[in-house]
Amino acid sequence: MEQARGSLTVCAQRQGLTEITGEVAAWLAEQTVSDGLLTVFIRHTSASLLIQENVDWEVQRDLESFLMRLVPESDTDYRHDAEGPDDMPAHIKGALTQTHLSIPVGAGRLMLGRYQGIFLFEHRRSPRPREIVLHLIGS
Amino acid sequence: MEQARGSLTVCAQRQGLTEITGEVAAWLAEQTVSDGLLTVFIRHTSASLLIQENVDWEVQRDLESFLMRLVPESDTDYRHDAEGPDDMPAHIKGALTQTHLSIPVGAGRLMLGRYQGIFLFEHRRSPRPREIVLHLIGS
Amino acid sequence: MEQARGSLTVCAQRQGLTEITGEVAAWLAEQTVSDGLLTVFIRHTSASLLIQENVDWEVQRDLESFLMRLVPESDTDYRHDAEGPDDMPAHIKGALTQTHLSIPVGAGRLMLGRYQGIFLFEHRRSPRPREIVLHLIGS
Repeated sequence: MEQARGSLTVCAQRQGLTEITGEVAAWLAEQTVSDGLLTVFIRHTSASLLIQENVDWEVQRDLESFLMRLVPESDTDYRHDAEGPDDMPAHIKGALTQTHLSIPVGAGRLMLGRYQGIFLFEHRRSPRPREIVLHLIGS
Repeated sequence: MEQARGSLTVCAQRQGLTEITGEVAAWLAEQTVSDGLLTVFIRHTSASLLIQENVDWEVQRDLESFLMRLVPESDTDYRHDAEGPDDMPAHIKGALTQTHLSIPVGAGRLMLGRYQGIFLFEHRRSPRPREIVLHLIGS
Repeated sequence: MEQARGSLTVCAQRQGLTEITGEVAAWLAEQTVSDGLLTVFIRHTSASLLIQENVDWEVQRDLESFLMRLVPESDTDYRHDAEGPDDMPAHIKGALTQTHLSIPVGAGRLMLGRYQGIFLFEHRRSPRPREIVLHLIGS
């Protein structure tokens, strides 16, 4: 049994979902562990992680749109707006999605379903570089 | 330290929550690892996983009802409706709940709380077989 | 490779978010594993866990307020109210946040981002002692 740790820095090109399955799989391909568990952890609270359908682009847009309406920037009850109207909605959307994902690995591959992809969910209007830690354990 | 991997295929009988604690515990009972960490991962994006109260059936129904109202099928803003009006709400409900659960294991048992159960959350009106991967690591 | 398991019992002083990063870090500091993965698991369904910003107190209050409005106690559709009007909203808020967190550990420290803290999210009006299981694996 052994483990490995690495990190990715990703800067989305726009607010919303950006697929990072390829980046994660590329890191995994360099490791000697081929069977085990991969954990993906984002070190931020105004961006998050999500496993979601990666085939039909409209699924991603509808999900972004739903969350924009569920957590509107125009909510007058927010007290925290230090970094602008998208600041507090970013934290709330982060809380409703994931800070970490754990995915089984078999034969050197992520055991994702056929239509599953790993996404960085950037909740700020102006994307910034996001640090993602990868931890792999197995044999 | 060792690890084991298995899978369950579960087809719910109805949309909503179906408890699978028994199926997961049965798989665990067959393993040689008795202390460690069990990860449960669902390979789908229109069904998800959840740990929730398993005693009072009304908790499950109220939770299903809340999500039906939070993410209504009648939302006219969805663009993705390839598989019907329950298609996009299924993806959104999946995003708001869990794709994976990690549960400590001690003395061969899931260390769930007294009122906690593991549920498959089927978000489609017509349930389909869902593949769930189990990963156990420990000693 | 080795593992360790422990537990914390925390009773919040009020409904809402209570930071427990210090308690988790104190347990970690006593372990011999310095590189690996820490999993934090709460054995309850009316309280949950969350990683959120721990610098500006207003972020925590705005998040609590958002969830109070998203999942109001006054919802007349709840059938489960055995323990009062805050009972069912507690289960729903638990379902929308986390039962477990997995955080990479490096050089004996939690690899949280600069502004991330670990929080117990107490959803009941009258907080009660909450049992949290810690599992650490690594070397």
